[in-house]
Amino acid sequence: MAYDKKLYQAQIAQTNKYNVFRCLVREGPINRAAIARRVDISIPTVMAIVDDFFEKKVIRSVGKGEFGVGKQPEILAINTDQFFYAGVDIGRSTLRVVVNNLAGGEIASMKEPTGDPFPEKEFISHVKKLMLRFIKKLKIELNQVLGAGFAMPGLIEGGTGKVIMAPDFGWKGTPLQDWLQEGIPCPVLVKNSTQALAVNESSALWTDEIHTTLCVNLGYGIGAAIITGENLYEGTGGISGELGHCVVDRDGPLCKCGNTGCLEAVASGEAIARQAQTIIAHHARSKIAELCGGDAAGIDAKMVFEAAEAGDSLALKIVNSAAENIGIGISMAVNILDPDRVLLCGGLMRNGPAFLDRIKASMEEHLAAKTGRSLVLQAGTRDEYSTARGASRVLMNTLWARRTLPI
Amino acid sequence: MAYDKKLYQAQIAQTNKYNVFRCLVREGPINRAAIARRVDISIPTVMAIVDDFFEKKVIRSVGKGEFGVGKQPEILAINTDQFFYAGVDIGRSTLRVVVNNLAGGEIASMKEPTGDPFPEKEFISHVKKLMLRFIKKLKIELNQVLGAGFAMPGLIEGGTGKVIMAPDFGWKGTPLQDWLQEGIPCPVLVKNSTQALAVNESSALWTDEIHTTLCVNLGYGIGAAIITGENLYEGTGGISGELGHCVVDRDGPLCKCGNTGCLEAVASGEAIARQAQTIIAHHARSKIAELCGGDAAGIDAKMVFEAAEAGDSLALKIVNSAAENIGIGISMAVNILDPDRVLLCGGLMRNGPAFLDRIKASMEEHLAAKTGRSLVLQAGTRDEYSTARGASRVLMNTLWARRTLPI
Repeated sequence: MAYDKKLYQAQIAQTNKYNVFRCLVREGPINRAAIARRVDISIPTVMAIVDDFFEKKVIRSVGKGEFGVGKQPEILAINTDQFFYAGVDIGRSTLRVVVNNLAGGEIASMKEPTGDPFPEKEFISHVKKLMLRFIKKLKIELNQVLGAGFAMPGLIEGGTGKVIMAPDFGWKGTPLQDWLQEGIPCPVLVKNSTQALAVNESSALWTDEIHTTLCVNLGYGIGAAIITGENLYEGTGGISGELGHCVVDRDGPLCKCGNTGCLEAVASGEAIARQAQTIIAHHARSKIAELCGGDAAGIDAKMVFEAAEAGDSLALKIVNSAAENIGIGISMAVNILDPDRVLLCGGLMRNGPAFLDRIKASMEEHLAAKTGRSLVLQAGTRDEYSTARGASRVLMNTLWARRTLPI
Repeated sequence: MAYDKKLYQAQIAQTNKYNVFRCLVREGPINRAAIARRVDISIPTVMAIVDDFFEKKVIRSVGKGEFGVGKQPEILAINTDQFFYAGVDIGRSTLRVVVNNLAGGEIASMKEPTGDPFPEKEFISHVKKLMLRFIKKLKIELNQVLGAGFAMPGLIEGGTGKVIMAPDFGWKGTPLQDWLQEGIPCPVLVKNSTQALAVNESSALWTDEIHTTLCVNLGYGIGAAIITGENLYEGTGGISGELGHCVVDRDGPLCKCGNTGCLEAVASGEAIARQAQTIIAHHARSKIAELCGGDAAGIDAKMVFEAAEAGDSLALKIVNSAAENIGIGISMAVNILDPDRVLLCGGLMRNGPAFLDRIKASMEEHLAAKTGRSLVLQAGTRDEYSTARGASRVLMNTLWARRTLPI
């Protein structure tokens, strides 16, 4: 009930600083008096924060205002040449990196194939090297980098950033955050890919009327993340949203996680490809066989969707079954969470609107309450850098919350 | 970014009032200066709030302190004779009512059979009548009742307290809160039973180390509720926690909700009884047949558990299958929410520790991350008035939050 006055004052000071910073990012260029009005703190407090920001080169002067009489106010803006931060999306096949300036503007992005994820330590060194090389290419010094956020598919332990399990990579217990941190002076943070994706997607598709978003990532694997208000709901240990490992078919195939009949094992991009590979190896009469040129092992989910689009009955069966299972999985999460929006993202969503419609029909069929809900199901942005962008956002939010930023 | 100063001040005033009230409830009898120290607000503010509380008969003087020199401070306590509130648990077979005084102390409780839930309006009038009769019997006037919270199994629309669907009662779209409110001068609030139960259970089994609790209610039906910190997570429309209507067996029996293979349809008390009834009607060689005296239609879940306890193989099969399905259902909710505690409550939990152990084994088998989790699975209090108590707690929390209390 009682509170710690010193802690409280430090929190207020930090909140003021953060609000002035945000005001400069969102509404700058802007003068001191206007900041004070917008943030609703006193002009002397704004002046002290602004002085500090000048000293740290966080902001710069962009001239004098022309309005009013008397002394003309100095116009301030975030200094976009001084500090940067990075977001890295560690994908199973592709690595994507974005670099932001202090105002949140994206100054560059790049992608490269990732290669074999073994041995883990070498793979992680390689990822780090690619990121550092890219930063160097942008003529940014390491001491200008405030931090780097990494998004990794799999179960990531909150706080430590350790990979509990990453079935797509075959990793278990990998101290990813520690290994990434080695030799890097700025803070490094590892988050689950879908959590990072959800942070960016729900912000990109922001609307005031939405309270809780369930973001579902349908790709090579399947994951989900929960956004309440503007915040990521991480769960107790950081491993919420594991929709891909919910059992939807107890008699179904073995999942890479070790369980049987997980949603991921029956409806992910990998599962779709695998199902087609198995069938085509025995029955060549399908558009899929044509698309893969007879090489069953070379079939990927995209080919199956393409064949389904062309009306191939075998492909349609596989795709419809995946959509039905995904709908069941989502209905479970909706029954439990009661969100008002489900965002469908990930590679599988690039295969046309029919897939989304089938998922929606299955979800609605299996929901507890079919009436009385205000639930929107919509496709995500389909932006291939969304996860990397989310990783950089999560990093900055975390650094502000931890009050460890040098600015 | 900017805030409304008047609103802010009103919030501060209300928070101060609430904190003084809580301090009196938790630490009273107590004097004004001690309240000011504990709540960390000024003595004049405390004095103004205390004067107001005296005027409204919220508090009373219980004498003078004996310590120190000079004027001896007046000792204050919550007035336990003036204001009351009620919690009502509308069960399928039993109605339970608790009445609390303003300090939160329970002054009385009662239970009565509920009878046939049709026609709905008559049933609801009957419930109201039983509650009012009980309050009258306690010699409490209606204007002394601050509010009544009702817990109802089923999907309850947030805000309106309308029953979207109550499969156990066969209700759909029933304006329960409106009908309960008719003719009652104090505020009436309807919440989902498991949500009310969870509020009371997580508070009764409170520990600082727990962040998120998933409370599962295993009874005639199956429900769940989520507590984060000290707060109920209701979801967007109030209908979170519908674990009972998550599909665990797609080829399973039809559920009363209209879907197929819901957890409730294969593992609730009703499902356990129904399975035994069907089998016993055809195979009489079971301990269950003995317990029901040959009357298959009279079999209830308790008999099945009793027979299982005695080693009856048929009963064991039914009970173990229910436990396995419940474990799968819980594993889904844990995969999605990542709580650090699962509380198992409800009638089925009164059947000995073996059932809990089987649920635990199944849950662990089907969890995504078997390591790296700090998850506690524990039995609830087994207190039959827990839901009614939760309903009264939720009511008071809501009235404080809405600032509509006349005190």
